[in-house]
Amino acid sequence: MSEFSNVTVVKKANVYFGGNVSSRTVRFADGSSKTLGFMLPGEYTFNTADPELMEILDGDLDVWLPGAQHWQTVKGGESFNVPGNAQFTVKIKAPTDYICSFLK
Amino acid sequence: MSEFSNVTVVKKANVYFGGNVSSRTVRFADGSSKTLGFMLPGEYTFNTADPELMEILDGDLDVWLPGAQHWQTVKGGESFNVPGNAQFTVKIKAPTDYICSFLK
Repeated sequence: MSEFSNVTVVKKANVYFGGNVSSRTVRFADGSSKTLGFMLPGEYTFNTADPELMEILDGDLDVWLPGAQHWQTVKGGESFNVPGNAQFTVKIKAPTDYICSFLK
Repeated sequence: MSEFSNVTVVKKANVYFGGNVSSRTVRFADGSSKTLGFMLPGEYTFNTADPELMEILDGDLDVWLPGAQHWQTVKGGESFNVPGNAQFTVKIKAPTDYICSFLK
């Protein structure tokens, strides 16, 4: 599915790293939420609260996941999971469009 | 209202100017649509099809509207209209979060 239907969207963007990373929050009827985000080239470290599923719609990045021994390359159409209460770093190599799902 | 409820959101971002401008398309039950967009500093020229209402949620820019004799400064909380089948140029001075409504 290329769309999310019957959802609520917060108007204001979530803005990180001077706007190099921005996202929109989407809320679902079941109480869950996701962000649709966009990252420009650069290196960014994020802290999670809930565990997250990061689906890369388009782009090219390396991610350093918690406990990892090396960078992992992720491209459009691929995804990765991040544990809750953790930190991960991405090196964005091409503008990257993603969906972040907050898992419980 | 800080949110749009009962809407459809297209997952993939609309990407312009190498990702310095990106937006998400939101569709409403009445058939209308808007984009929620984000622009990083730079100068960008856009072509309209339908007339547009540009609401600036946050940011700082100058806009050169069709037929204008000078730049007009627009800040967060302000808005401007663009005719259909026209061209306008924005000089983004600070990361700018906006809602673009396509009017009929």
